[in-house]
Amino acid sequence: MEIVLLGTGAALPTRQRWPSATALIRPGEILLFDCGEGAQIQFQQAQLKPGKLSKIFISHFHGDHFYGLIGLLTSLQMQSREKPLHLYGPHGLNAYLEFMKKLSHFTFGFKIMVQEVRNLSEKKVWEFENYRVTARPLHHRITSLGFRLEESPKSGRFLVGKAESLGIPEGPLRGKLQKGETVVLPNGTKVEPSQVLGPERPGKKVAICLDTKPCANAIHLAKDADVLIHDGSFDDSKRDWAETTGHSTVVQAAEIAREAGAKQLVLTHISARYKEEDEPELLEQAQRVFPNTILGHDLERIAIES
Amino acid sequence: MEIVLLGTGAALPTRQRWPSATALIRPGEILLFDCGEGAQIQFQQAQLKPGKLSKIFISHFHGDHFYGLIGLLTSLQMQSREKPLHLYGPHGLNAYLEFMKKLSHFTFGFKIMVQEVRNLSEKKVWEFENYRVTARPLHHRITSLGFRLEESPKSGRFLVGKAESLGIPEGPLRGKLQKGETVVLPNGTKVEPSQVLGPERPGKKVAICLDTKPCANAIHLAKDADVLIHDGSFDDSKRDWAETTGHSTVVQAAEIAREAGAKQLVLTHISARYKEEDEPELLEQAQRVFPNTILGHDLERIAIES
Repeated sequence: MEIVLLGTGAALPTRQRWPSATALIRPGEILLFDCGEGAQIQFQQAQLKPGKLSKIFISHFHGDHFYGLIGLLTSLQMQSREKPLHLYGPHGLNAYLEFMKKLSHFTFGFKIMVQEVRNLSEKKVWEFENYRVTARPLHHRITSLGFRLEESPKSGRFLVGKAESLGIPEGPLRGKLQKGETVVLPNGTKVEPSQVLGPERPGKKVAICLDTKPCANAIHLAKDADVLIHDGSFDDSKRDWAETTGHSTVVQAAEIAREAGAKQLVLTHISARYKEEDEPELLEQAQRVFPNTILGHDLERIAIES
Repeated sequence: MEIVLLGTGAALPTRQRWPSATALIRPGEILLFDCGEGAQIQFQQAQLKPGKLSKIFISHFHGDHFYGLIGLLTSLQMQSREKPLHLYGPHGLNAYLEFMKKLSHFTFGFKIMVQEVRNLSEKKVWEFENYRVTARPLHHRITSLGFRLEESPKSGRFLVGKAESLGIPEGPLRGKLQKGETVVLPNGTKVEPSQVLGPERPGKKVAICLDTKPCANAIHLAKDADVLIHDGSFDDSKRDWAETTGHSTVVQAAEIAREAGAKQLVLTHISARYKEEDEPELLEQAQRVFPNTILGHDLERIAIES
């Protein structure tokens, strides 16, 4: 998997930091988390293929998280999209699409399948092939959904040494065992996959928590995550303001990452008040609590080795 | 006056050409014509002062002309704007603002004064201090408004030679005459402004016509304009497609400019199909009909000497 940060800004975009949008590239598809104004342009800047976009998740209806949605959808139509697109987000998504379609005289030639989360206080799980996405309510001024994408566990690595000691010839028999099939060797011996495969490997996990104050659900979503992308709107001297506005400081984000046992923290939703020269201080504050932190920038890519 | 092209793209934005938006800088204020997605970011890129923005005119409700409006307005609020902002456009503007405010839980602390054009088939004139803006219906798939900004005529130049021959001393008396006041010289002679001022000078005129097929109202709006900014979506081999989609080719735009007696033509709303290497051909096609043509680019500035 690969994460592409399309927008790492907060409510007020700057030339360097556009409104929230995060792409997650998986085999054969791209998922988008939030779709702030200009996300479709950043999508192009990052040279992502619009045809690969399969699912869009919207955290909440503050403008910096969804004002770019309708423009992205209409552009997909103009690119002659045919395959369905899936949208997930709070109740209101359908009404928004209907209103904008009518006002802008727009008709979609592809299906937009909307799943609205109506009970925002409960955990919601969507199961897909090879992975699941869980949404949980965070703690913002209005309810915002945090997301966790968790890949299904992968079969263990093929242990060549064991295969050789069992006399399994190179070729299709090894391939079948790797895929989990039992095989019979030329000499009549039956071999089970478990005899030549290492332990099952856990799937990769990515959590995306914004906008939010520090909260228990962010920790749930980020549990053992390979990457946690978290609201880090302010430096830690602004704790009161973060509390008032329903955001987190970079240190609070680092505390969540530490408590959840995440492997890496990516700070995003950085307030427009911080200039380039302020960034080392923001990063240092977070790294004192959680060393493996990066401060996200627009169009930055983060690989997650599988 | 100065024109700043913020978005010269068509329906499908590209990395080089964002959706429609044109800023017009006047003494003490900035007017914006259309507000496609990302206009607020281009406004920053062009280093325009948001506090100077006084009026926004929306031509029509195809997405590439207004999807950036709500984001621009909410950002003005976050920049603590206090003074009113005036919006002009087709019926539907109010409903759009109300819907988006409600969905995104947004409250404005400054007044947004909306003037909707309800009868789109008639000419509409708004009078301001020192200039007027006229809107006329163009010929697109849905009714789109074209605009003409015309400055009030300016008083003639002060003719120093005449003033000297009349024995008018340098200083406040000359200033009064320049402002159009009659004065009495120390020797008792009465002098009228017309005795020392050259002929009244016409005000500058800018016309903005998109989206549209060639139409009579575009010619009306562009009559003797110093600058005509016109839909030039396609090269001239695409006349049929321009007709089908309600747009103009670059040659049709040039014909409008010639017929209207405009001084300069700026082609905009350039289709995403044209790459940088196609631009010389587009420009040449137009220049064969109307030599003083430029092909607009995002963030290009066009000065209009007064």
